[in-house]
Amino acid sequence: MHADRLFPADPGTRAIARRLYNSIRALPIISPHGHTDPRWFADDAPFADPVSLLLTPDHYITRMLYSQGLSLEELGVVPLAGAPAAAFDTRAAWRRFAAHYHLFRGTPTRLWLDWVLGAVFESDIPLAPANADRTYERIAERLARPDFRPRALFERFGIEVLATTESPLDALTSHAAIRASGWKGRIISAYRPDPVIDPDTPGFAANLARLAELTGEDTGSWDGYLAAHRKRRAFFAQMGATSTDHGHPSARTADLSERDAQALFERIVRAARSGAAGGADADAFRAQMLTEMARMSLDDGLVMQIHPGSWRNYNRSLFQRFGPNIGADIPMASDYVGALRPLLERFGNERALTLIVFTLDESAYSRELAPLAGHYPALKLGPAWWFHDSPEGLMRFREQTTESAGFYNTVGFNDDTRAFFSIPARHDAARRIDCAFLARLVAEHRLPEDEAAQVAHELAYTLPKRAYKL
Amino acid sequence: MHADRLFPADPGTRAIARRLYNSIRALPIISPHGHTDPRWFADDAPFADPVSLLLTPDHYITRMLYSQGLSLEELGVVPLAGAPAAAFDTRAAWRRFAAHYHLFRGTPTRLWLDWVLGAVFESDIPLAPANADRTYERIAERLARPDFRPRALFERFGIEVLATTESPLDALTSHAAIRASGWKGRIISAYRPDPVIDPDTPGFAANLARLAELTGEDTGSWDGYLAAHRKRRAFFAQMGATSTDHGHPSARTADLSERDAQALFERIVRAARSGAAGGADADAFRAQMLTEMARMSLDDGLVMQIHPGSWRNYNRSLFQRFGPNIGADIPMASDYVGALRPLLERFGNERALTLIVFTLDESAYSRELAPLAGHYPALKLGPAWWFHDSPEGLMRFREQTTESAGFYNTVGFNDDTRAFFSIPARHDAARRIDCAFLARLVAEHRLPEDEAAQVAHELAYTLPKRAYKL
Amino acid sequence: MHADRLFPADPGTRAIARRLYNSIRALPIISPHGHTDPRWFADDAPFADPVSLLLTPDHYITRMLYSQGLSLEELGVVPLAGAPAAAFDTRAAWRRFAAHYHLFRGTPTRLWLDWVLGAVFESDIPLAPANADRTYERIAERLARPDFRPRALFERFGIEVLATTESPLDALTSHAAIRASGWKGRIISAYRPDPVIDPDTPGFAANLARLAELTGEDTGSWDGYLAAHRKRRAFFAQMGATSTDHGHPSARTADLSERDAQALFERIVRAARSGAAGGADADAFRAQMLTEMARMSLDDGLVMQIHPGSWRNYNRSLFQRFGPNIGADIPMASDYVGALRPLLERFGNERALTLIVFTLDESAYSRELAPLAGHYPALKLGPAWWFHDSPEGLMRFREQTTESAGFYNTVGFNDDTRAFFSIPARHDAARRIDCAFLARLVAEHRLPEDEAAQVAHELAYTLPKRAYKL
Repeated sequence: MHADRLFPADPGTRAIARRLYNSIRALPIISPHGHTDPRWFADDAPFADPVSLLLTPDHYITRMLYSQGLSLEELGVVPLAGAPAAAFDTRAAWRRFAAHYHLFRGTPTRLWLDWVLGAVFESDIPLAPANADRTYERIAERLARPDFRPRALFERFGIEVLATTESPLDALTSHAAIRASGWKGRIISAYRPDPVIDPDTPGFAANLARLAELTGEDTGSWDGYLAAHRKRRAFFAQMGATSTDHGHPSARTADLSERDAQALFERIVRAARSGAAGGADADAFRAQMLTEMARMSLDDGLVMQIHPGSWRNYNRSLFQRFGPNIGADIPMASDYVGALRPLLERFGNERALTLIVFTLDESAYSRELAPLAGHYPALKLGPAWWFHDSPEGLMRFREQTTESAGFYNTVGFNDDTRAFFSIPARHDAARRIDCAFLARLVAEHRLPEDEAAQVAHELAYTLPKRAYKL
Repeated sequence: MHADRLFPADPGTRAIARRLYNSIRALPIISPHGHTDPRWFADDAPFADPVSLLLTPDHYITRMLYSQGLSLEELGVVPLAGAPAAAFDTRAAWRRFAAHYHLFRGTPTRLWLDWVLGAVFESDIPLAPANADRTYERIAERLARPDFRPRALFERFGIEVLATTESPLDALTSHAAIRASGWKGRIISAYRPDPVIDPDTPGFAANLARLAELTGEDTGSWDGYLAAHRKRRAFFAQMGATSTDHGHPSARTADLSERDAQALFERIVRAARSGAAGGADADAFRAQMLTEMARMSLDDGLVMQIHPGSWRNYNRSLFQRFGPNIGADIPMASDYVGALRPLLERFGNERALTLIVFTLDESAYSRELAPLAGHYPALKLGPAWWFHDSPEGLMRFREQTTESAGFYNTVGFNDDTRAFFSIPARHDAARRIDCAFLARLVAEHRLPEDEAAQVAHELAYTLPKRAYKL
Repeated sequence: MHADRLFPADPGTRAIARRLYNSIRALPIISPHGHTDPRWFADDAPFADPVSLLLTPDHYITRMLYSQGLSLEELGVVPLAGAPAAAFDTRAAWRRFAAHYHLFRGTPTRLWLDWVLGAVFESDIPLAPANADRTYERIAERLARPDFRPRALFERFGIEVLATTESPLDALTSHAAIRASGWKGRIISAYRPDPVIDPDTPGFAANLARLAELTGEDTGSWDGYLAAHRKRRAFFAQMGATSTDHGHPSARTADLSERDAQALFERIVRAARSGAAGGADADAFRAQMLTEMARMSLDDGLVMQIHPGSWRNYNRSLFQRFGPNIGADIPMASDYVGALRPLLERFGNERALTLIVFTLDESAYSRELAPLAGHYPALKLGPAWWFHDSPEGLMRFREQTTESAGFYNTVGFNDDTRAFFSIPARHDAARRIDCAFLARLVAEHRLPEDEAAQVAHELAYTLPKRAYKL
């Protein structure tokens, strides 16, 4: 990995970018939103093998290989109805991966994996058929070492705080175990209530019942349901959580009267219990609940995140065979200006609320999101997300949001990943791109270098800590 | 301010940009669309103080400060129902502004203000807590001098012509006073009939009544209403106006039969008189009136501008407290290809019509607007507007429109501002960005430098004069 | 034409781009989709004159000139109802073109024409009033020479294969004549069934009748209609075609039951025979037929292309006077994620299907198309199309698709042109832009140069051959 990677080619601008980056490269990593497994840090057991660590669970990788004709089974993904693939040949799967590594040219996966293989495992890069076996063995050998266990890596990676994401139905036992262990690594949860908010979730009625058990509230009544949320939010907060997260199909919000909200909830519960789909009511309920969550955030201080616009499990037959998170979630065009208005009308002027909005629809950056974030005290822009947390995507985010929202209505970087080993590479890429953008502003005499250095520091460290109350 | 600001960093390209820019930097400013106050030039009185001149009325500034937790009152914005803030401490407000000046890093506001403070007032830049008082005093001292009065600055700024924007209900007394004064500065109006076209305007019925008074026409009848427009347009033209301007929520146009248009108008009038909202009729009426305005433009030669796609006064509670233009207008996704078709079907092939269309939705540049402007004789592309009249936004405009529309279906730059002091900075930024874009074409051997120089001259001077008939 | 045209200005990056380009510049041209006239190669007659070759039929040129006030008649376009312009003065038309050549500054037309005039005709560039007559004569003189006949140019241009596009009602006599002639140039057709699929096509009922004659099938019955398609597809394939092409208003697909599809078709036929417009049924039928075409492609192996989102003949009065293809087709905002789902649900996971999707709506690149192509085995991304097959457009395509789809889910370049003389210039521009993009990846240390060189070769040659089965 070249020391100047991701910096602009122009020598003058590159020198500025390098100076800016060197002033922030060693800052601790703030990871306020992601999907790592807290059990890793609770158990601190060694990771199993290169394939189950790096290949099979990474839907950026499996989607690309699938698009080019490989089957998910060949990559170690186990069908829901299938027998566990006891005899799955991980080494053959790794060779298959190596044979197709050229598919990732020009993608962020290539950057992240080169870093994981090169910097973490000190192996050959790029992965290729000629080094596949050697690389496999190197990784396997390292994974057996104590300094490659989760906690050791957490420390080596320089992570100051790492948020995972859990359902209100999760007992947070791993988080409790981490705390009880005396280990000082800061792993916190985030409250992601989609399973008890989205009536289209499979098992929604059962989820409500389970929520009732956990809280002692009557989740069949509107008041009880809201009270149950409040209790679980309080529990999450007590376990370190500082935020909630909402992965709705759209950013639609609503602000119904108390009476209408109650009636809507009762229809939702009746439909759920009868096994009927929610239909239009489901969408309205998700919309109303975003506003309810904002109301609760004003009470308990949890920062609220909305991640809208992903058509989850778009490929139905693949979903039926393999379940979710196999690389078949597809972005949709998303409206924000109309969708968020009911919530913003109600709470947008509240300085005590922090609402962080993300998008998969880059056309909304300059048109809707930056203008909204540049006006509302409650609203902040989440960083480039998912398909866009890549060099080009991160750069477009800055180019298209900064002029209307400034830097200070953004909140630094999220890695948003389940790929623990790639976290430093992702934050490093974001820092480099931010420095590349700032270096251009400096080179074009739009910002003095000392101010750019201050901004670089804030984007990497101060803003995420402040925005997420960490 | 660095002499090379906004030029590309690559030394070869920068040298070309500098040569192009130096050949046009001293050209007079053509400002064919904006919102300065004609009274300034009629009265030629000194501007009051730094805060009421530069901070309070600039909604680019107040929106950003509001988004970061400052109240509008702290910035001098007076609530509609509030008592006038007789004791408002402008110096404290200025210090507040200085303390938050870092928020504007990376925004065009920073560029414009640095220029106003540095080049116009010869004060320290950037504004900072340490120089806030000194800067305040410097500005106050200069504002008291004769060479900082409106007319002197107009001349110093090298403005050849400046258009303001007025309602048909405006008597244009300031414009008349300017003409009567013998001063040679060319200040003209533009006909912005939204208050008598948009049935959703508060006071619409009263506006129609006032229009009847001013014209002696029966504005309760379709024929009389149209005749009233014709008379006011003629009056505006006589007072120097060369254009009309239409700030509708969408670009929707309609081409109803005479009979249907009349019936629609009668429903609009009935609803207005009864105090009912226009609803769907209001939208249809606005659509029809764009086509009527185009028809009149063919008769009287006024250039027609459409500025669609802003959700005005989006933040209702703030609007109710403070009124419009406080930084809470938000862009919306906008359709052009369907919306403009009725008007284009009727008049798009007319060479004698000039219809200049703007957008807040940059995704329409390459998809709809450049292809339309590259075909219809009547249609021209307005420059990057509002949230997008910034370095990145101006550059995206050229990058995304030039290949389908060319340069010659665009009309130069609009500052579109009420911030008089920033006008030279805005035009200068547009010239620099156009030269930066052209320099890249030259450096990439896509255009010879002599042709680029000719284009630079036309974008800065010739095209706006020709398009706006100035 | 400068040897470094279209390469980035930064000297280091330019040197990389030059190396990459020099390694692929001489590769044969693969032109898998376009609109040249096969009669040219069947007859091998000299082209008539500069105007009827280069000006009149090129709707990129006529649209721009029309937008700036020239009439189509002045450019040699003959009105449908008009008498043939026997006395049309081509030399005067050429002078008119030269007098307006500045309008093309910054457009791809300028690049292509400079190449045609300079490299093919060895004439002065740029075209200008001062050299208009000399240039006209030079072109006319060359066109009379044997080495400027279609087949000689085909060979000189280094074209390995060139696909034309024909309706199922076309007897492909020119293609047959080419084959019978013994000439080795590979000219193949592509099956474009819009005239017998789109109920909104003028003459649709007659087209169905003609299809019945050609195939001996009862095209009034659903089974017969489908069988007729199968027969014509087989005939096209036998004549060398490897692909179908579908120019629908939207990408909408449907997957009706056999029974519903049959009922829909019967309504379509009844409406067509009664002269009624198809209305909503027409759109549903086009949608269903895309899925039927995919089903047939799985059987006969033809690669399927969808070119959606153009509002054809948008300018109705011009269409009525001059017919189609005069530069008045306008892009529309296009949905893919919802529109394609029925087809993708049915066939998206088929590795044996190749479905190439194009767009005129660049906002779909990063939001919908790259994510879809980066997942579905059947789906590939067509290159930047029509208004976007320009330097900026080609670059945006790579910048906005590569990170989610990679390079290997794209299919190289299409010239998609009826302007035969510009084909080498168009492919050359695409190769240069791809090398410029790759050079930036190399300069930013995102891809080693040897891998970039491999990708450049694949984009220029291997991928189009493989994707189109050539």
